[in-house]
Amino acid sequence: LTFSPISRIVIPMNRHYFDWAASALPDPLTESEPEKNENIPFGNPSSRHAEGRAARDALEDARARCARVLDVEPEQLYWTSGGTEANAIPLHALLPYAKMSTALFSEGEHASVRENFLMITLLNRRICPIPIGKEGRVTPEALEKTLEKCPDAALAAIMAVNNETGAVTDMAALAETVRNRSSSRPLHLHCDMVQTIGKIVFPLSKTDSASISGHKIGAPRGIGLLYLKKPLEAFLRGGGQERGIRPGTENVAGALALAASIERHAAPGIVRVEYEKAAKRFARLIAFLRGHARCVLIPDDRILKDSRFSPYILQMRVKKIPGEVLVRVLDDAGFAISTGSACSSTSWARPVLSAMGVRKDAMLEGIRISQGWATTDDDISALIDALTHIMEVY
Amino acid sequence: LTFSPISRIVIPMNRHYFDWAASALPDPLTESEPEKNENIPFGNPSSRHAEGRAARDALEDARARCARVLDVEPEQLYWTSGGTEANAIPLHALLPYAKMSTALFSEGEHASVRENFLMITLLNRRICPIPIGKEGRVTPEALEKTLEKCPDAALAAIMAVNNETGAVTDMAALAETVRNRSSSRPLHLHCDMVQTIGKIVFPLSKTDSASISGHKIGAPRGIGLLYLKKPLEAFLRGGGQERGIRPGTENVAGALALAASIERHAAPGIVRVEYEKAAKRFARLIAFLRGHARCVLIPDDRILKDSRFSPYILQMRVKKIPGEVLVRVLDDAGFAISTGSACSSTSWARPVLSAMGVRKDAMLEGIRISQGWATTDDDISALIDALTHIMEVY
Repeated sequence: LTFSPISRIVIPMNRHYFDWAASALPDPLTESEPEKNENIPFGNPSSRHAEGRAARDALEDARARCARVLDVEPEQLYWTSGGTEANAIPLHALLPYAKMSTALFSEGEHASVRENFLMITLLNRRICPIPIGKEGRVTPEALEKTLEKCPDAALAAIMAVNNETGAVTDMAALAETVRNRSSSRPLHLHCDMVQTIGKIVFPLSKTDSASISGHKIGAPRGIGLLYLKKPLEAFLRGGGQERGIRPGTENVAGALALAASIERHAAPGIVRVEYEKAAKRFARLIAFLRGHARCVLIPDDRILKDSRFSPYILQMRVKKIPGEVLVRVLDDAGFAISTGSACSSTSWARPVLSAMGVRKDAMLEGIRISQGWATTDDDISALIDALTHIMEVY
Repeated sequence: LTFSPISRIVIPMNRHYFDWAASALPDPLTESEPEKNENIPFGNPSSRHAEGRAARDALEDARARCARVLDVEPEQLYWTSGGTEANAIPLHALLPYAKMSTALFSEGEHASVRENFLMITLLNRRICPIPIGKEGRVTPEALEKTLEKCPDAALAAIMAVNNETGAVTDMAALAETVRNRSSSRPLHLHCDMVQTIGKIVFPLSKTDSASISGHKIGAPRGIGLLYLKKPLEAFLRGGGQERGIRPGTENVAGALALAASIERHAAPGIVRVEYEKAAKRFARLIAFLRGHARCVLIPDDRILKDSRFSPYILQMRVKKIPGEVLVRVLDDAGFAISTGSACSSTSWARPVLSAMGVRKDAMLEGIRISQGWATTDDDISALIDALTHIMEVY
């Protein structure tokens, strides 16, 4: 991993960072673009004096820059504190109005979606999972069946790229399924795009809402975006900031950094070029894994360059080495790798793999390898060498 | 306002910043303390590899530093995205369990409390306001009466320092009232301390929960703290971060900056020294205002050094000049001042002043002057000169 020296960020030497899906390396350039980000107005964007207006201008400029890259209207983007909050807003917006409707969520959802769905059942709201099957993605057929079962569905949360397996959902086809269903009730299609933005080109406008996390694409923590095709009535209230969708004094510095990250990493041309590079790097790794009897890809039919999966995330296992052990051994060898989602690292449960029908013993062996724009061929080579060595020893 | 040159922060020359209650000047030292904050680990604190552990260590170190200054246990502090979120967590925690209980909130609460209370009535939850009276604060008598009216009260949200008038609530006396009431039901006392921390010494442990906002005491946006005497079951869910109280990848950089801000501005010794200086500066301003027939303090019996009010926030009006106009004229003259809360600047409603019984015409003339640690005597002199001049012209 070669990376130019960055002030205030520690990049350990002799380390290979393969946990980009948990948090990307902070992109130093998004913090130091001289013309755009050097001067961060400190005023409260809701204040009407010069300092407040300067902050407001910066905030709206950052929003417009994000909208331009993401090909949506600035008014459709709302700053949030991150992906978790952006995922919760559309679901929680249903609470006051949706006593009689069902909320659907795919079995592959990140904890920030799944756990909030489970929570609303305590308020006597109905929820229903959409099966993801062996491949770990919602198919139009699976969605259709669930919609038939729940004609009163008001919202469906389906992630575009799974954070544990990299499985890519055909969101355009699902949007089509939603449009073509018999029920005439409006159905809100929410899409967790935390692992999609900057990785795979996908038009936000195919969804009713989508979540974006800053720190997954090089911006600092504490900033994210919610795309909303149309405004809604948010449940969390406060001073009316972000047109009522997300209260709290706006994080101007975070917004500017996220705008810079999105410009540098999420523009379609850049995404396509980086996608090819990432796919090529992972193809080498996958070729090695497929050639080794003890290595199993999850799901096991993933091939070298496989458009069904994000080339940034890979779930695999080494037979007879528990995932937790492999992560520790690789860490000692200089590799940062996780088992599944960092967010569920405190629990042994692997709900996504479980929903895919992965056997329990295999599940406990699963590890996630995720890469990013600063990953090099040398990182891949080092990882292949390390895995080879570990399998000889263990 | 003299302030040393700060990289990345614009402090306009010839400006006098009197809107600290909306957002404090960022304290450059909290961002550049070489030993403590220079190196911010970029890993996800939930990851188990070296990068993750470094981030976790930094996060817990920041928490311990805050706990030391605030005289609570580190386990009682939870990082949030800011004050708004910290205010919502205890209220929303009631939702799944509190069908049969009432939530109380003072009429003086900030929008981030008030609006969330109003919102839960849509879920058929009962709420009841606690009157603040002419002085703009909840008295033990007012709380007692409300508790008698609502024996099923499960939570009471009462702010310690009002963000529009500076009115200081005697939280210790209120805590005593709660303890001494006849009902044996547990009652959770939540305290918005956004305008208290770093301004007035008050023990968090007198409350069951309290909210702290980073950007009100010199830290960046997007970070805050929730103090919780005992853990609770939060409503917003996700990856289980912050022991389930606040989901989302933890903002390590924000936490370190907030720890530095709290050490520099919220330690009791510093708070007491700064309090005296602030009170002395405001005493000059209040003497001027009291000496001028067109100037009215809100409430009008506020005296020079008045322990009933925070020396950092002052509400006043100039007869015959609408607040919006005065703010604009002062802005043109180089002064950053707000009418009320920046958070409600998009609305003409002034619920706090209204609850205090301020007449509508007087209410529309109200402006808020708020100062901070970088405010100087020269700022006060300049403001007095400007007000004198404006009253001659308008």
